[in-house]
Amino acid sequence: MEYEHLVQYYETDRMGVVHHSNYIRWFEEARTYFFEKAGMGYATVEKRGILSPVVAVSAEYKTPCRYCDTMIVDLKMVKYTGVRFVFEYEIRNKATGDICCTGTSKHCFVDEDGKIISVKKVASDVHDMMQSLLSD
Amino acid sequence: MEYEHLVQYYETDRMGVVHHSNYIRWFEEARTYFFEKAGMGYATVEKRGILSPVVAVSAEYKTPCRYCDTMIVDLKMVKYTGVRFVFEYEIRNKATGDICCTGTSKHCFVDEDGKIISVKKVASDVHDMMQSLLSD
Amino acid sequence: MEYEHLVQYYETDRMGVVHHSNYIRWFEEARTYFFEKAGMGYATVEKRGILSPVVAVSAEYKTPCRYCDTMIVDLKMVKYTGVRFVFEYEIRNKATGDICCTGTSKHCFVDEDGKIISVKKVASDVHDMMQSLLSD
Amino acid sequence: MEYEHLVQYYETDRMGVVHHSNYIRWFEEARTYFFEKAGMGYATVEKRGILSPVVAVSAEYKTPCRYCDTMIVDLKMVKYTGVRFVFEYEIRNKATGDICCTGTSKHCFVDEDGKIISVKKVASDVHDMMQSLLSD
Repeated sequence: MEYEHLVQYYETDRMGVVHHSNYIRWFEEARTYFFEKAGMGYATVEKRGILSPVVAVSAEYKTPCRYCDTMIVDLKMVKYTGVRFVFEYEIRNKATGDICCTGTSKHCFVDEDGKIISVKKVASDVHDMMQSLLSD
Repeated sequence: MEYEHLVQYYETDRMGVVHHSNYIRWFEEARTYFFEKAGMGYATVEKRGILSPVVAVSAEYKTPCRYCDTMIVDLKMVKYTGVRFVFEYEIRNKATGDICCTGTSKHCFVDEDGKIISVKKVASDVHDMMQSLLSD
Repeated sequence: MEYEHLVQYYETDRMGVVHHSNYIRWFEEARTYFFEKAGMGYATVEKRGILSPVVAVSAEYKTPCRYCDTMIVDLKMVKYTGVRFVFEYEIRNKATGDICCTGTSKHCFVDEDGKIISVKKVASDVHDMMQSLLSD
Repeated sequence: MEYEHLVQYYETDRMGVVHHSNYIRWFEEARTYFFEKAGMGYATVEKRGILSPVVAVSAEYKTPCRYCDTMIVDLKMVKYTGVRFVFEYEIRNKATGDICCTGTSKHCFVDEDGKIISVKKVASDVHDMMQSLLSD
């Protein structure tokens, strides 16, 4: 799935390019979009007391990008166990096609007390959705 | 009261100086410090169900500041009514003495449902503290 | 002119609502969009050595907004002198129509050394554009 | 080397804890401190036209941390080749001793055109300093 992000001025740093921490935020923006498109907005899931914190994140920076560049975040869910899931990302510059960043993020499901939960057991509709979103 | 902030790389933008939105965050950092020093840490007050959202903010930018500059945020509470309070800020570059930014922020007290409350009525210890912190 | 912003998770704070500093960033996003639509992208103007720092900013917060809310930033340029310009903003929640924030920002034009310049004198095409964008 | 960071309100998200992207920024804060303490402030090195972008970053999140928590960022440079260097991080909650996050960052040296340079060849004083900072 592809998500577009327009680079903002406040995302740049004094090197003239986007500060590396913002790519991690774009990963999150893309996940929001991904779940929204799947009809399972993350805000709605949270209201049911099911949270999914980030357990790990990694990013490799290839080519810098700049203010007003349009970026394509290409993401897919590559693993889902009922308890944990993993996303992979590739961020390209829409105009040039240059790959700017690749990365991964790992997540789990927890309840409001922070205890790990199996969505498979406690929310079968969420579980079914998650399985359907898994990339082949 | 004076609070020190060291300018971070991620706070700069492509103009080579600190992005203007960060000064608003330094106002908040200074308030955290101010209340902590007064022995009434804001985290502790929040735990009692007393929140104090920002109602208004203003800033005037005089001189830019840069990565690794040490900034002095000079702040004082200039008004307190039992329900609302106002801070004034002056941010100087420690090395040069240049005034970089002046500003204000307005706040009120609300309960966890967002309803305005009089701290004077519901938390007299907080009220006494607030009054003692008011600048002459 | 209206600009849309979808509230991101990383823009919220522990009060469960958007942190007040982010509205200042949305003002900037809306300006980027405003100039882009006018055919005078700010990145292009900067390449010619014409910068426009923020000189002052103010915001009043009316109603909080939350993760995944779609916000409308309604902005207009209300003043332009050839050297300085002023924007006014109103940010509404698209779904409810609630006004969440109103504000202003003041700007000037400077060269790469930070010296104030009259765009009217040094870049008549930019000047003409600016005048045409001024609200009645 | 240990660097202290006090968690700010604007760093929290609606889960009530620090947003995961901020740990990446604290890695950077700790590097700034590390080089400053070594007498080779990064701002000074940049002035000589030697930049060191982040090439890769990774983080594992163990325990959340909250507003007003004091965090210890323990960092060490574990690799340095004359062209590239690698840092490792462990972030602990000062009060509880809990490890909140571990991570790594990889960097290289580039000139102002973004071309990779060997500091060993072009800036022997920087090279000597880098070598002396390498952990055993």
